Amino acid sequence: MRLGHLARAAPLLVRTAATAATAYPAAALKAGDALRSRRRRFTEDDVAAYAGVSGDRNPVHLDDAFARGTGGFQRGRVVHGMLVASLFPALIAAHFPGAVYASQSLKFAAPVYVGDEVVAQVQALQINAAGARHIVKFATKCFTDDDQTLAIDGEAMAFLPTLQLSTEVME
Amino acid sequence: MRLGHLARAAPLLVRTAATAATAYPAAALKAGDALRSRRRRFTEDDVAAYAGVSGDRNPVHLDDAFARGTGGFQRGRVVHGMLVASLFPALIAAHFPGAVYASQSLKFAAPVYVGDEVVAQVQALQINAAGARHIVKFATKCFTDDDQTLAIDGEAMAFLPTLQLSTEVME
Repeated sequence: MRLGHLARAAPLLVRTAATAATAYPAAALKAGDALRSRRRRFTEDDVAAYAGVSGDRNPVHLDDAFARGTGGFQRGRVVHGMLVASLFPALIAAHFPGAVYASQSLKFAAPVYVGDEVVAQVQALQINAAGARHIVKFATKCFTDDDQTLAIDGEAMAFLPTLQLSTEVME
Repeated sequence: MRLGHLARAAPLLVRTAATAATAYPAAALKAGDALRSRRRRFTEDDVAAYAGVSGDRNPVHLDDAFARGTGGFQRGRVVHGMLVASLFPALIAAHFPGAVYASQSLKFAAPVYVGDEVVAQVQALQINAAGARHIVKFATKCFTDDDQTLAIDGEAMAFLPTLQLSTEVME
């Protein structure tokens, strides 16, 4: 278990959830707030495990020579885009357990190679009440290369049971 | 390894890849063609494995009582939407090894419960040359309940190294 981050506005003010819980005993998500994941490197083992459970054995993910040749990926095998994109619901669920995903759009803008360090960010664009829940539109972005390269861009809609950030961040 | 299916137009004419290879020695994808996955049930073990590799431990996927209560899912825990959605690139890559995903939109229209039988379908809407490759826009749909319920709806764009369907379907 690792603490997540709450970042508000730009430049991103990163606070640990523990800090946030102290400074903001009832921290609630507001439009404009951005949440960032911990940095993560997807390993060969991760890619193999994902290939197993998803059934996606595209050789661009499993075979360096094929990835360079047919795939055109200079540095060899790449992480499944949908595995990298799983960071978005994981990040939202870590802060809002019980979140229910309604939609996600994904533009795979740059490859994520096995071993690259990636960071996911979700920023609340719009928040509306939906019965007892809230429906939140998030901008969802994933970066590599020390945040210099946008690897995935898109938007998600999720129903959150509450806007209060969980102090028990699970990611 | 299981043979995939090629379906063309509606009503869906399902042929095994082996049959297709015989009847259409150089079967090439055309606009309107639909490919269907084998039927699949995601098990508790699949969901646990995916939670491990993605880091998404949202209790709506792991805890029946929580899924029914906070999540509002009557039949208990649901499969991660992004895991179900992984069937789309898996299906495309099975028929076109070396396919590179450019984008995907996903609307999670109905829950997929652990153990539900799901089928994914991708239908080529538009095909354009892109240098030595082709860029294909697919309608991507996933059904449960004997195809009666649309669980996921969306579109994908993928670069295919060739339009020839692989006779070695990997899924």
